[in-house]
Amino acid sequence: MAVNLDHCKNLLKIDGVSIGISSAGIKQPGRRDMVLLALVPGSKCACLFTQNSFAAAPVFVAKAHWQLTGPRYLLINTGNANAGTGPRGIEDALMCCRVLAQSAGCRPEEVLPFSTGVIGEYLPTERIMAVIPALVADLNPLNWEAAAFGIMTTDTVAKGFSTQFKVGGCLYSITGIAKGSGMICPDMATMLAFIATDAPVKAEVLQACLKNAVHNSFNRISVDGDSSTNDAIVLVATGLKGGVGINSTTGKDYHPFNTAMTQVCQFLAQAIIRDAEGATKFISISVQQGWDDDECRQVAYTLAHSPLIKTAFFASDPNWGRIIAAIGRAGLKDLDISGVSVFLNEVPVVAAGCRHPDYREEQGQQVMQQAEISITVRLNRGTGVSSVWTSDLSHEYVRINSDYRS
Amino acid sequence: MAVNLDHCKNLLKIDGVSIGISSAGIKQPGRRDMVLLALVPGSKCACLFTQNSFAAAPVFVAKAHWQLTGPRYLLINTGNANAGTGPRGIEDALMCCRVLAQSAGCRPEEVLPFSTGVIGEYLPTERIMAVIPALVADLNPLNWEAAAFGIMTTDTVAKGFSTQFKVGGCLYSITGIAKGSGMICPDMATMLAFIATDAPVKAEVLQACLKNAVHNSFNRISVDGDSSTNDAIVLVATGLKGGVGINSTTGKDYHPFNTAMTQVCQFLAQAIIRDAEGATKFISISVQQGWDDDECRQVAYTLAHSPLIKTAFFASDPNWGRIIAAIGRAGLKDLDISGVSVFLNEVPVVAAGCRHPDYREEQGQQVMQQAEISITVRLNRGTGVSSVWTSDLSHEYVRINSDYRS
Repeated sequence: MAVNLDHCKNLLKIDGVSIGISSAGIKQPGRRDMVLLALVPGSKCACLFTQNSFAAAPVFVAKAHWQLTGPRYLLINTGNANAGTGPRGIEDALMCCRVLAQSAGCRPEEVLPFSTGVIGEYLPTERIMAVIPALVADLNPLNWEAAAFGIMTTDTVAKGFSTQFKVGGCLYSITGIAKGSGMICPDMATMLAFIATDAPVKAEVLQACLKNAVHNSFNRISVDGDSSTNDAIVLVATGLKGGVGINSTTGKDYHPFNTAMTQVCQFLAQAIIRDAEGATKFISISVQQGWDDDECRQVAYTLAHSPLIKTAFFASDPNWGRIIAAIGRAGLKDLDISGVSVFLNEVPVVAAGCRHPDYREEQGQQVMQQAEISITVRLNRGTGVSSVWTSDLSHEYVRINSDYRS
Repeated sequence: MAVNLDHCKNLLKIDGVSIGISSAGIKQPGRRDMVLLALVPGSKCACLFTQNSFAAAPVFVAKAHWQLTGPRYLLINTGNANAGTGPRGIEDALMCCRVLAQSAGCRPEEVLPFSTGVIGEYLPTERIMAVIPALVADLNPLNWEAAAFGIMTTDTVAKGFSTQFKVGGCLYSITGIAKGSGMICPDMATMLAFIATDAPVKAEVLQACLKNAVHNSFNRISVDGDSSTNDAIVLVATGLKGGVGINSTTGKDYHPFNTAMTQVCQFLAQAIIRDAEGATKFISISVQQGWDDDECRQVAYTLAHSPLIKTAFFASDPNWGRIIAAIGRAGLKDLDISGVSVFLNEVPVVAAGCRHPDYREEQGQQVMQQAEISITVRLNRGTGVSSVWTSDLSHEYVRINSDYRS
């Protein structure tokens, strides 16, 4: 049961992007597990990929192809990550690109492959290649919702978001979809997400905007601290809507685009947490008044990764002792705990490093009954800030992750 | 159900140490929740304490008292950690020391207080002070097993170990007890452990030996990555057995003592993992061939903290993909994954960064059926090594930690 999240609907189509869906039966017979995004020639593409040393074969291939030329097709399969598969994994990913190129009439390096699913098994290339003609035949600009369903793995809710922004009198659309609910602790990029706009955006500006938006969204979430081998995010600008375009990150036209992108990415990133494996709570952690943003982020992630805090939230137990214990082990140098305060939503729980004199357990319990809870930590030693979104740790998390392969 | 661990028995008495047990009803009426260790005058004491910034009040007081003078009494309560309790917590801990000093006839600074249990509640000092005369009256050298029971919190098994070593023709005894099964990821010291020997050992040598033994035992375990606010370990040398004594860390007499101490600490540290909250598996992680020991430890702890690996072990699923994903996110610079190999017990699972050509899933499944499993990772880039012991993540872990306060 995702926390306050429904399947996405009414996603805006983006001129210049069409989408095909099909089933290769990779893990479950009949499941629509293949998605193809076709981009109009001339589209600009920004990408970020996982920092994991064991990055999957498709990550290597997608990165290499993207650096060579402008992408025309994004080919996505679920059910198999093609990670930990060595040279054969690379060969398999390349073969899928070649077969698609032949079928769609482009060069293999114009195809970026993406995979997600079980790590360590070889890609069932026969089955994938067999459905490529069907994928191409299915291409349609209205398929965004179907694509959001198509890329799901342990997700229970299809995740997508659209918004619009105005630059130079021209109204642009932006639509994004994402998948992910476990092995989530992105670093520079995360899970799979595909976002497109019909605005004309210069390549460097597109990359800078993606990096900034990811920094404030996907790089601020954690389900279990486990960064994936297959994380990738792509931002496409087809430019088909025309207009003067967004040509610099300093011009006034950049702001509306950047705001819209951050909104899309934050919605999708938070959607991943709302649909985190076994989640019953959506927890926003805000750490303030640190020496710098980095140490605030360090504390926020220490809290977000603490199994003891996550199980306490699952139990709706305002166990603030576990929160201060985690702050205390976050590795801050010379932290004066007598300056530390902690709030659960608006309720001051800890002041001057110990229980707030007016705090009553019933107040904390009342906060804990809610499905969306914020933890605010003030360190009282600077102006740094950072926010992280996370989920609780439930029986269902253990069940999902002890059942996943079997 | 602890993994291959029974209640300790036949612990050796240590001349010069006597122990009293009583019940103050701190959390459960009738539970023997107070333990007092009395040390013969002239005993040497080595100590290590938690590095947590939110160190509990008794940690501050014990550290201060220990630095002032030779300890005569160690006063331990369970059921309440006296952490996150600010100045009043310090005052409460000092008051307990004063009352014991009065009852036992010593100076307050000769008492070291230790607490473990719920964080953030004030110590029930009235109830504690009321049982101090009973504790003193109960002092007896044969009470080691009862003390091991007395210091338990969420532990299901009482943990203790004795051994003997010979120096200069003299046979010495060493006995230790420990508690802990959750909020376990020590850094320099851990949980509570009390160890004593009847050998005469110089103070500096005692501290060096404790530090070394802890480095190779308690600092090599993790249940949940959450370091506690109350961790403390004390090593006492009463010297009552006589003999030439152990006066330097370089002399030949040091080796038998150091070996015995490491044996005691490793047994107790591993016992904590065997009795980890909800544990069904005892997992030894060995990382080899790193640039240095530090990076091996970094990888070992990344594996030990991964909820995805821990749930896979709970499910007896040889999901090596999660192992390589965790190695890949451990933050090693320039890791060449084509040199990485992974073994489950003796079974080679990953070679050259991907599935070993001869590996069959049945082999991995066979290993996973066992209650004690080793993961060996070879990084192929140096001579560094490190070992960490950890547990799996089960439904029972979530149940225990979502029930703990309620």
